[in-house]
Amino acid sequence: MAALLDSINSPADIKHLNPAQLATLAEEIREFLIQSLAKTGGHLGPNLGVVELTLAMHYVFNSPQDKFLFDVSHQVYTHKILTGRREQFGTIRQPGGLNGFMLRTECEHDCYGAGHAGTALSAALGMAVARDLAGGTEDIVAVAGDAAFTNGISFEALNNIADQTKKLIVVLNDNEWSIDRNVGAIARYFHKVVTNEHYQQLHRLSKRVVEKIGGKTAVNVMRRAEEAAKGMLWPSMLFEEFGLDYYGPVDGHNLPLLIETFKFLKTAERPVLLHVLTQKGRGFQPALDLTKKFHGLGPYDPETGKTAAGQQTWSEAFATTLAELANMDSRIVAITAAMPNGTGLDLFRPIHPKRYFDVGIAEEHAVIFAAGMATRGFRPVCAIYSTFLQRAFDPIVHDVALQKLPVVFCMDRAGLSGDDGPTHHGLFDIAYLRGIPDMVLMAPKDENELADMMKTSFTLEGPSAIRYPRGPVVGVQKRPAQVLPVGKAEVLADGSDVAVLGLGHMMPLALELAARLEGEGYSAAVINPRFIKPIDRDTIIRYAERVSAFVTFEDHVKMGGFGSAVLEVLEEVGSKVPVVRVAWPDQFIEHGKVDALRKKYGLTVEAAHDQVFPMLTSRRRSPLLAG
Amino acid sequence: MAALLDSINSPADIKHLNPAQLATLAEEIREFLIQSLAKTGGHLGPNLGVVELTLAMHYVFNSPQDKFLFDVSHQVYTHKILTGRREQFGTIRQPGGLNGFMLRTECEHDCYGAGHAGTALSAALGMAVARDLAGGTEDIVAVAGDAAFTNGISFEALNNIADQTKKLIVVLNDNEWSIDRNVGAIARYFHKVVTNEHYQQLHRLSKRVVEKIGGKTAVNVMRRAEEAAKGMLWPSMLFEEFGLDYYGPVDGHNLPLLIETFKFLKTAERPVLLHVLTQKGRGFQPALDLTKKFHGLGPYDPETGKTAAGQQTWSEAFATTLAELANMDSRIVAITAAMPNGTGLDLFRPIHPKRYFDVGIAEEHAVIFAAGMATRGFRPVCAIYSTFLQRAFDPIVHDVALQKLPVVFCMDRAGLSGDDGPTHHGLFDIAYLRGIPDMVLMAPKDENELADMMKTSFTLEGPSAIRYPRGPVVGVQKRPAQVLPVGKAEVLADGSDVAVLGLGHMMPLALELAARLEGEGYSAAVINPRFIKPIDRDTIIRYAERVSAFVTFEDHVKMGGFGSAVLEVLEEVGSKVPVVRVAWPDQFIEHGKVDALRKKYGLTVEAAHDQVFPMLTSRRRSPLLAG
Repeated sequence: MAALLDSINSPADIKHLNPAQLATLAEEIREFLIQSLAKTGGHLGPNLGVVELTLAMHYVFNSPQDKFLFDVSHQVYTHKILTGRREQFGTIRQPGGLNGFMLRTECEHDCYGAGHAGTALSAALGMAVARDLAGGTEDIVAVAGDAAFTNGISFEALNNIADQTKKLIVVLNDNEWSIDRNVGAIARYFHKVVTNEHYQQLHRLSKRVVEKIGGKTAVNVMRRAEEAAKGMLWPSMLFEEFGLDYYGPVDGHNLPLLIETFKFLKTAERPVLLHVLTQKGRGFQPALDLTKKFHGLGPYDPETGKTAAGQQTWSEAFATTLAELANMDSRIVAITAAMPNGTGLDLFRPIHPKRYFDVGIAEEHAVIFAAGMATRGFRPVCAIYSTFLQRAFDPIVHDVALQKLPVVFCMDRAGLSGDDGPTHHGLFDIAYLRGIPDMVLMAPKDENELADMMKTSFTLEGPSAIRYPRGPVVGVQKRPAQVLPVGKAEVLADGSDVAVLGLGHMMPLALELAARLEGEGYSAAVINPRFIKPIDRDTIIRYAERVSAFVTFEDHVKMGGFGSAVLEVLEEVGSKVPVVRVAWPDQFIEHGKVDALRKKYGLTVEAAHDQVFPMLTSRRRSPLLAG
Repeated sequence: MAALLDSINSPADIKHLNPAQLATLAEEIREFLIQSLAKTGGHLGPNLGVVELTLAMHYVFNSPQDKFLFDVSHQVYTHKILTGRREQFGTIRQPGGLNGFMLRTECEHDCYGAGHAGTALSAALGMAVARDLAGGTEDIVAVAGDAAFTNGISFEALNNIADQTKKLIVVLNDNEWSIDRNVGAIARYFHKVVTNEHYQQLHRLSKRVVEKIGGKTAVNVMRRAEEAAKGMLWPSMLFEEFGLDYYGPVDGHNLPLLIETFKFLKTAERPVLLHVLTQKGRGFQPALDLTKKFHGLGPYDPETGKTAAGQQTWSEAFATTLAELANMDSRIVAITAAMPNGTGLDLFRPIHPKRYFDVGIAEEHAVIFAAGMATRGFRPVCAIYSTFLQRAFDPIVHDVALQKLPVVFCMDRAGLSGDDGPTHHGLFDIAYLRGIPDMVLMAPKDENELADMMKTSFTLEGPSAIRYPRGPVVGVQKRPAQVLPVGKAEVLADGSDVAVLGLGHMMPLALELAARLEGEGYSAAVINPRFIKPIDRDTIIRYAERVSAFVTFEDHVKMGGFGSAVLEVLEEVGSKVPVVRVAWPDQFIEHGKVDALRKKYGLTVEAAHDQVFPMLTSRRRSPLLAG
């Protein structure tokens, strides 16, 4: 069935294909993606959009000597298939299998990893400057989606490119989508270019020319025509003002045109930007109809595109609660950085359209914008994944906390993200937020407590942050949200031999460990810390006077995590009670299933038990069993 | 002498002045600034540049109802003088005196604080959207220097402005300088606008028109003329592509012109950008001659501008060493984010001009650019202040550490910055860097060790960071740099009762405490940790077996700092030895003299002694004295 694709084991294998064969290959890759991802899940839509673009790049350039960078790099499946990973492709995003993003350790063709948007131009410029210093001749090609240009880093890079190198190819992969529809002036600007009737005429013309003439002449004709049109339509393009020669827009599914264009750009003696138009989900009708859904997803039916219906997620619980709280409190506004779907805020938007703000992939702006609103009496909620909020660490310190402004950070995907892997794990937020003065930092054990914490955050006069994980909620019976006493833990079960603290969604492990220890004759307290900061010193100290050990469970790195906060408290009161800290070790954690990775790295009841049990055996057992 | 200025106690007092009086007032303010800052030091150059601009803003708008935001906000001295703080102005940047930046808690006219560049547009947009939601009518005016536009956040904001409000005034204060000369396409772009001969003619013409006619007619004439010129010269300005109406450039020292222009802009029904040309250091010849020096500085002679000659600084030691190491290692390149002077790299630049990169106020780009170079075998050094490196936390995690790239972060101004205050203190870097896997984190006790650590960092296969303070070096005899064993502390003095760890430049306190305890009959070990990560577990454990207490000194917040790292080690081996952690408390620290602030917050030998002494008295004294 996929006779041609089966013969492609490296980029060298496509160099001698004729145009008809390349077209066949593109079709085969598309079908391969649809069938394969139906089983594994993955970023289907973005990858269906760049099949021809990736083929053209590998046809014209020579990876790995030439360097390809893909912004965010969730659109590299064709690149992976063409660079010797076709046979492993069925393992993508699976435990022990291929990573869903570029990964330097995976393959020599993956020259730069990424999972956060906006980095490709900066990294590519670094490589170009390195080449220039070393006297090399390789080409550097950075592919960035239109959404990457809503992020400031892309502009910081643009501001430097023309000054620092004469040879760099930037491909603007314009599909008008980030994860959700793009926002802002840049998106409108790209759209204006593309929808102009003069461009449309020109585009049709140049397509015909290429089809009829083919080869270099065609490109020259096209280029002259487009330049003339540019002179007429966009005399001073945004990118040209940054010193890049602008070419395009060109049809990103026209393989011969892309190949001729890249051949020409290879000869450019100034940095260039090629504007390519692609269609997300190209070739799979369900993905074209529901672009959001098919951006990145789990397994689906390859015929109909249907996926399994899911439980309520933490994101949905957050958004629903926020909409309810906003009904009663007109100060509440919601801000997302291009993630209305991922954060659940697309459930908030229709209810409070004027109090909803999607600022693009612009986490720093999101937080400072929130700070500005907070100075005027509003209560902004920034819903940003834990890993992406790392982008806004300085604004959180400098704009929000230092000014004691009541901005609320709702950190979705806190903890291990699972299939997406290390670029998306949210394992550092306690370490980077806990040291910030005046920050109130919380983690809920279930969705009701998430609502409580949100309600509590709106009563505060300073900043607060709530961390909760990816995936389905606990599924408790819903009750009205209540304001929690700040800095007070919840004691779920009293006990005198050991105190087990289960932070947030790690509570089930704490309960299970306590039950096991109880079964072994020990009296185990179970504590829901609720507040990482201010930490409940009184409760910790009270138990320090009674128990012979603490255990802390947290879905965060061990170093500088919640367990360390407990150590600090115990140290300050001179307590000698040992603490078993169960958390992620000091290394980057690969992608995989959360349960399997917890097991591999010792975030289990079993592992905790092995550590804490010897600390308890020296103590008397509880009277009933000891008797 | 300053008869007019003496009568100005609030913005209301300038509303009724005539043009001649306003001109006089501007002169008096300028003289007042020169005389006053001669005693206190401060950002002289930037403030001399915006006297007329600030006067015009207060003349036309009504602060505090109308909101003024100043990017970076080191240029707010005239604003402070006009808003009731003239009499306190002699206390600026002095302990207990006025802060050198906007500070919300200082005055109702300081609506938004800042010390890091690029935040004003985002915060102003937040205020504008808040006004629109609340149905208010106040004006929001954001003043941002040209350098702010080398930072990506400004572009993230620009991308959102036109979509989200119809009423926002952005003033581009174009003086062609950040702290050092601006770099990149944006700076060149502004320059191109300003130096165009057509503009020059037009500008002279409009100035004459304003002088002869005055008032509204003049502005209209000028505006029509400028628009015509714009249509001819810059049909599609950068800012207009972002949906802002562009006006200018106008002479930022022509007070009547500024006033008329602001009156006009107040009526605009779309967001506007006013391009204002100012001269840094205007009115003080020494500041015009040496713009870098007079950007921000200590006391000087108000006649000649001469300052006291200083000792070598840590910045200079860093840059000199880097130049030497680069002589021997062609892989080394240096990157600064608009701070060649502050980081010392202007000493490196002339020696290795092709291996020096100033990327503008673009910390994220700086780090990703470095990562790109590192993938190609280079050894980039990012010299960025600790507080500004907060901007690049995510690239450090996502681009550098996750890819195990050998980028070296040299963090100047780590620890308390002193006079600049909380926006500039570098007190969080251990907390945010220590949790990152594979990071090697160091702090030198003197400039020789700084050189050792730099040399060591170039032998590593992954990321590293070195933190060192502002100010003069220790002044040790220079010796050749040597590679240090990674993760090994240096034991400066052995001892058996107490182990005192002095991190980096806090070593003098450790030595003094040890001496004092020795004098009291205790045997005190003194340890130079060198490595915060990987921490020297062996040495800590060895002393844990002998001493009855540890003391850690660090110039960092206590929460999640080096002392906590020591607690983690002790906990992991089940040690019960107490640790006195001397570090900054969990609150934002104001500006002031470092010594005074250390005393106030207990970072002293005395305070440490008070805590550790009771832990020792229960132990036997050393035989000699005990006998």
